[in-house]
Amino acid sequence: MAQEIERKFLVSSDGWRASVRSSSQVRQGYLSSNAKATVRVRSYDDQRAVLTLKGRASGLVRAEYEYAIPVEDARELLEMAQPHVLEKRRYLVEHDGMTWEVDVFEGRHQGLVLAEIELERADQAVKLPDWVGEEVSEDERYFNATLSRS
Amino acid sequence: MAQEIERKFLVSSDGWRASVRSSSQVRQGYLSSNAKATVRVRSYDDQRAVLTLKGRASGLVRAEYEYAIPVEDARELLEMAQPHVLEKRRYLVEHDGMTWEVDVFEGRHQGLVLAEIELERADQAVKLPDWVGEEVSEDERYFNATLSRS
Repeated sequence: MAQEIERKFLVSSDGWRASVRSSSQVRQGYLSSNAKATVRVRSYDDQRAVLTLKGRASGLVRAEYEYAIPVEDARELLEMAQPHVLEKRRYLVEHDGMTWEVDVFEGRHQGLVLAEIELERADQAVKLPDWVGEEVSEDERYFNATLSRS
Repeated sequence: MAQEIERKFLVSSDGWRASVRSSSQVRQGYLSSNAKATVRVRSYDDQRAVLTLKGRASGLVRAEYEYAIPVEDARELLEMAQPHVLEKRRYLVEHDGMTWEVDVFEGRHQGLVLAEIELERADQAVKLPDWVGEEVSEDERYFNATLSRS
C-alpha cells in the first residue's frame, strides 16, 4: 500500500529562505473530505497536475494514492471543487540532507506558513531546523482539507 | 470537457439475453457522493480498474473524468469504500446498431436489472428494445451511488 508519513510544523522565522532549492505555485481543491477518504486535485505552476486520494490518518501515517492527470482536467475539477480551493507557494528547502516543503499560503490564509517533512518511518529521527516552531502534525486545524473549508 | 450523456431503463424481460456480446464482473465502490462530485472506483473482472469523477447531473448530461488505475490500488480503494460497494454482472447487448449495457445486480440488490445506453447528444433518437420498461434516467433511487448506500 502507498503510505504517506508526514510531520508538519508552524514556521517561526524566515531562516528557511536561505536554503530554498526551488518553488512552484500550487493550487489545490477538495472534491471530498469525509470519514472514508479525502479527494484532492492539485496543479503545479498550471503545468502538471495530480489527483490524490488519501484514507483517514492513523497518527502520522495515511494511505495515499496519486495519479497524474491532464492539466485541463485539473482546471475543470478545481472549478468543481470551489469554494474549497487553496492557493500557496511551495518552496523545497534543504536541511541536514533532507528536503522540507515550506508552504506560504495566499488568499484568505495569507500569513500562514507551514513546513512539512515526509518520512520513511513514523519513528524516523529528524533534526529539526531552527526555523520550525510548534509541531501540528495531528492538529486538524492545519490539515489542508480543513483550511480549504475555512 | 468530458461528458457523459446516458439514459437508463428498468428491464422488463429476459429478451436481451439473446443479443449478449460479452460480459464482465463489475465491482464498484464510492469514496464520495456529495453536492460537488461523485468519486467511484470500479474494477472489471478484477483485471482492469478505473477511477471516475462525475460532477452533478444536469438532466441527462454529466461531466465525467476517467482514469485507469492499477488493479491493486482498486482493491484497496474498494475496501476503503466499504460498505458503499456494489457488485453486478454487466452484459454488453447489441440492439439496432447500438450497444446497451445491461447490469444484473448481485448481493443485497439481487433481482434488480437495469439497462443503460450512452448517447452523443441528449436529444439523440434511440430505438428502444422491447425488453426495456420504464425510463429511470433521472430517478435518483436508481443512481448507482444511491444503490451503494441502500
